[in-house]
Amino acid sequence: MPGPVSPRLGIATVCLSGTLDDKLAAVAAAGFDGVEIFENDLVVSPWSPEQVRGRCAGLGLTIDLYQPFRDFEAVPPDVLAANLRRAEHKFDVMERLGADTMLVCSSVSPDAVDDDDLAAEQLHTLAERAARRGMRIAYEALAWGRFVDTFDHSWRIVRRAGHAALGLCLDSFHILSRDSDPATIRVIPGEKLFFVQLADAPRLRMDVLQWSRHHRLFPSQGAFDLPAFVGHVLSTGYAGPLSLEVFNDVFRQADPYRTAVDAMRSLVVLRERTAASGPPAVRERVRVRDLPPAPPLSGFASTVVAAPEPAEVANTLRAMGFRARDAGTDAKLWTQGAASVLVRATDEDTARVAAFQVDSADPAVARGRAERLLARSRPDGTVAAPDGTAIAFTVGHEEGEPGLLTGIDHLSLAAPYDDVDQTALFYRSVLGLEPEPDVEFAAPFGLVRGLSASDPDKRVRIAHNVAMLRRGEWAPAVPDPQHIAFTTVDAIATAGCMRDNGVPLLDIPDNYYDDLDARLAPSRLDELRVGSVLYDRDEHGEYLHFYTAILGGRVFFEVVQRIAGYTGYGVLNSPVRMAAHRRLRVEQPSRL
Amino acid sequence: MPGPVSPRLGIATVCLSGTLDDKLAAVAAAGFDGVEIFENDLVVSPWSPEQVRGRCAGLGLTIDLYQPFRDFEAVPPDVLAANLRRAEHKFDVMERLGADTMLVCSSVSPDAVDDDDLAAEQLHTLAERAARRGMRIAYEALAWGRFVDTFDHSWRIVRRAGHAALGLCLDSFHILSRDSDPATIRVIPGEKLFFVQLADAPRLRMDVLQWSRHHRLFPSQGAFDLPAFVGHVLSTGYAGPLSLEVFNDVFRQADPYRTAVDAMRSLVVLRERTAASGPPAVRERVRVRDLPPAPPLSGFASTVVAAPEPAEVANTLRAMGFRARDAGTDAKLWTQGAASVLVRATDEDTARVAAFQVDSADPAVARGRAERLLARSRPDGTVAAPDGTAIAFTVGHEEGEPGLLTGIDHLSLAAPYDDVDQTALFYRSVLGLEPEPDVEFAAPFGLVRGLSASDPDKRVRIAHNVAMLRRGEWAPAVPDPQHIAFTTVDAIATAGCMRDNGVPLLDIPDNYYDDLDARLAPSRLDELRVGSVLYDRDEHGEYLHFYTAILGGRVFFEVVQRIAGYTGYGVLNSPVRMAAHRRLRVEQPSRL
Repeated sequence: MPGPVSPRLGIATVCLSGTLDDKLAAVAAAGFDGVEIFENDLVVSPWSPEQVRGRCAGLGLTIDLYQPFRDFEAVPPDVLAANLRRAEHKFDVMERLGADTMLVCSSVSPDAVDDDDLAAEQLHTLAERAARRGMRIAYEALAWGRFVDTFDHSWRIVRRAGHAALGLCLDSFHILSRDSDPATIRVIPGEKLFFVQLADAPRLRMDVLQWSRHHRLFPSQGAFDLPAFVGHVLSTGYAGPLSLEVFNDVFRQADPYRTAVDAMRSLVVLRERTAASGPPAVRERVRVRDLPPAPPLSGFASTVVAAPEPAEVANTLRAMGFRARDAGTDAKLWTQGAASVLVRATDEDTARVAAFQVDSADPAVARGRAERLLARSRPDGTVAAPDGTAIAFTVGHEEGEPGLLTGIDHLSLAAPYDDVDQTALFYRSVLGLEPEPDVEFAAPFGLVRGLSASDPDKRVRIAHNVAMLRRGEWAPAVPDPQHIAFTTVDAIATAGCMRDNGVPLLDIPDNYYDDLDARLAPSRLDELRVGSVLYDRDEHGEYLHFYTAILGGRVFFEVVQRIAGYTGYGVLNSPVRMAAHRRLRVEQPSRL
Repeated sequence: MPGPVSPRLGIATVCLSGTLDDKLAAVAAAGFDGVEIFENDLVVSPWSPEQVRGRCAGLGLTIDLYQPFRDFEAVPPDVLAANLRRAEHKFDVMERLGADTMLVCSSVSPDAVDDDDLAAEQLHTLAERAARRGMRIAYEALAWGRFVDTFDHSWRIVRRAGHAALGLCLDSFHILSRDSDPATIRVIPGEKLFFVQLADAPRLRMDVLQWSRHHRLFPSQGAFDLPAFVGHVLSTGYAGPLSLEVFNDVFRQADPYRTAVDAMRSLVVLRERTAASGPPAVRERVRVRDLPPAPPLSGFASTVVAAPEPAEVANTLRAMGFRARDAGTDAKLWTQGAASVLVRATDEDTARVAAFQVDSADPAVARGRAERLLARSRPDGTVAAPDGTAIAFTVGHEEGEPGLLTGIDHLSLAAPYDDVDQTALFYRSVLGLEPEPDVEFAAPFGLVRGLSASDPDKRVRIAHNVAMLRRGEWAPAVPDPQHIAFTTVDAIATAGCMRDNGVPLLDIPDNYYDDLDARLAPSRLDELRVGSVLYDRDEHGEYLHFYTAILGGRVFFEVVQRIAGYTGYGVLNSPVRMAAHRRLRVEQPSRL
């Protein structure tokens, strides 16, 4: 659990899947202070508003907002009367819930007219009705509002209405999706900000309504500068909750307990980033004293492969030039240069990269930071990432004898596609990594998305490559494979030696080299072809790499040579690798 | 298999999932005449081009196009030299493949300049190189081309180049996504059209490149007027293949045999629609004599529910007022008015709507049409829909004794989300139904999409309601439930009688009626509330409806009263129904 938080943190029930019962329990378990009750969640619930109120109180949650109330303002008198009747019904519900703030979205109704004075006058009437019942109205400009679609327009109307029970709700999505300048939030007095909703999103060039309804993300998972946004909000003196409102197709159908924890982690990270970028007054308000910065990393100390038949992995490592020593009753540690792999048995069906150890400047601090970021601690002193991998922190590690391989270049892990944004945020925030550009490519059995991140010195690189859809019976390889990439200073020579030593290396088709010749015409094409070594080039340098077969049904090794600061992972070659792995499976089905 | 086809029908390998081997086999099995070889499929394949050529010949497939060649034209001399070198490498591959036409896409390269004369001159050079090897170049304007992004611009350049081996490739997506007028295709001489690619797509307001790469659909599954497009193409005298090029995230990872059959069905439907809308010359060219029109329908004759415990379903039907008679050794036919349900045992885990019978003006013709549309025929004389439901055609049916229920209003079936567009097209084309507007709504466990279609007289309505994502462990009810909706003339009275008779009806929460009062204030609110009858209203009339519990883990019944021509299905109430079903499951887990 994170430490004491200021300001208070909330979440809208619409972010989560399940019944209202499920949602409230998950929200409380993740440590939130309050909730926004989304109307539809109440409408389908058998709990009376009084029962919901009691349940929230029992869980220690405040009901910070009732939402949404739509299509109210700037309408002819008969429609106004009907809308006020509708509002009074909702005030009844709020009274029973014990909720005092109602969200009113700017109108999208064909009944509405473009008349700010009329909108202000009618909102004044609504606020007056609310005030009589001890309630207040938070008016929000939807990015697709019919006439009011920017927050400064909604602010002009609220100012014109001039009622103490009428203020603004600001939603980061509606503001940042339109490229409105959030710095102008600072002109709004904090006491007129009644509510603030936070959502991140990827930059998509699409209809803003569809973008909003389907593709919102939790903070730090998208492209919006939320630390700056929150800094502006807090600068006004706003003292209400920071509340997540994230419409996302995946979260709507995922385990709400898991989603709520991911949501809370994203707010803890946002708090840290806001403090780092904001002025002193903001820093004080967001209090991150309980979250120490990530200590610098100097590389991977070791990785752990758990395999149902460890001998297969061990034999491959031996043939690759690793030397073994015992590391416990049923495990061996294989080392070569700075590369180190511990192999142990598992009773799971397939092999996996079960754990890794990083060299940290301060392991105790690193572990404390992970716990503050809601990492699960395990009895063996490691922390568990959401993809199931265990992470340990150490200071320095013993090197093996020098050989063809010199160290570990990167780990490529896997996570279900639906979890990969949250998983990537976990790794970045816990280890202090910077994201690298996302990639997406078409592989023989569907699209694959690749996310990666590295520490500033490029000593710890972690990638996740995940199938974007895998819903049918057809596509193979569930779950996605994982791999460990070792470094060498001469990929062609290393491939030759390893092949002579019987390492099960992937054969790459002639067609690939014919195409490579047409595209890039590398200088040592024939040697690449003979060695089944793949090739890529970027604006910095070159990348030569090759792969082993898949071991234990899931894990393989890569050997890479980076020349002159090549920054990528040879992703264009991934489909070639995948097709080659698939051939081995078909030809040697026992490997499945 | 469809009958003889003119023009020839083709498909690009990029439409399908798997290796080149998988794709070619699936294409041939679905009855296509030819393929476009997508370069990446060849690059990752261990088969030499000669082996691919032999395989296609063995399968009776011609290789109609090699694609794509990118970023060729309107570049400085040094880039041109490199591009020509690259092209010659590809001509080598095509020679080995036995392919004579190469697709060249309009450039998106930063090296290119905006100079039509230069583009024409360089394409002339390329065409000359191709011609020397007996090949030709089909130039295509990408909708996101840097300078050439409309087909009429590509035509100006091809005309200016004036080389016999240089012609156009037209792709319906690139043309219709930009709202270009396809009628102007008619100005192009047919012999300068070297290739025509077809793709449909939903109307999405988003970046055209992303739209194209992820959301294309087969013809008649999207919003484009492809019959008109094909009519214009054929009017030019174009005699090449109509070839599908559909980039779709789902098809990329789905069983290619299934996808290829769906693709072929969509072309058969397109042929019929083109003939129906085109001038006589076009009608003659697309030859649909082997596909009879769908005979008119006059209603559902019966439905078949297969249940692991038929007694549960039978008892419910009895309490709903149905009377039974034996219908074979282990089945009973339950009738009431024009409603008829056959209940039989199954050894499957859950109940399902296994079959239905429609009253057709000509059952033999209807069945012949289904077979022409690649429906699988079953030994019992029915045809199988892609969702597994069996369909039978009959003339007239015996009615049961009159009762509270008067007939069948609609069936709500289910299909995996990935298959639902193809499944819906199957029902529409086989039964001659017209699509109704799609709906999408947020349910407690995720988004749901609803598709429906009906015959022109609204006597046969078939809906599919499917979860849009269901990839985790959390969301319940896999597969989606199915239901049969019966008609009544008085839903409130019927609900009262049925409740008294012990029918397990769903209880609807008070919160729903409070909200209904606020929203629509129906006249008989208290009676609706007491009877747990749901309510909706549209511009025509009203809809009163209620539901039973889920029987056999999957099937439930609805009773509906349509007043004054209400056209919908009460979809706004679906989340209320789903939450209520979920409560019953939690409270009575044995029902799962």
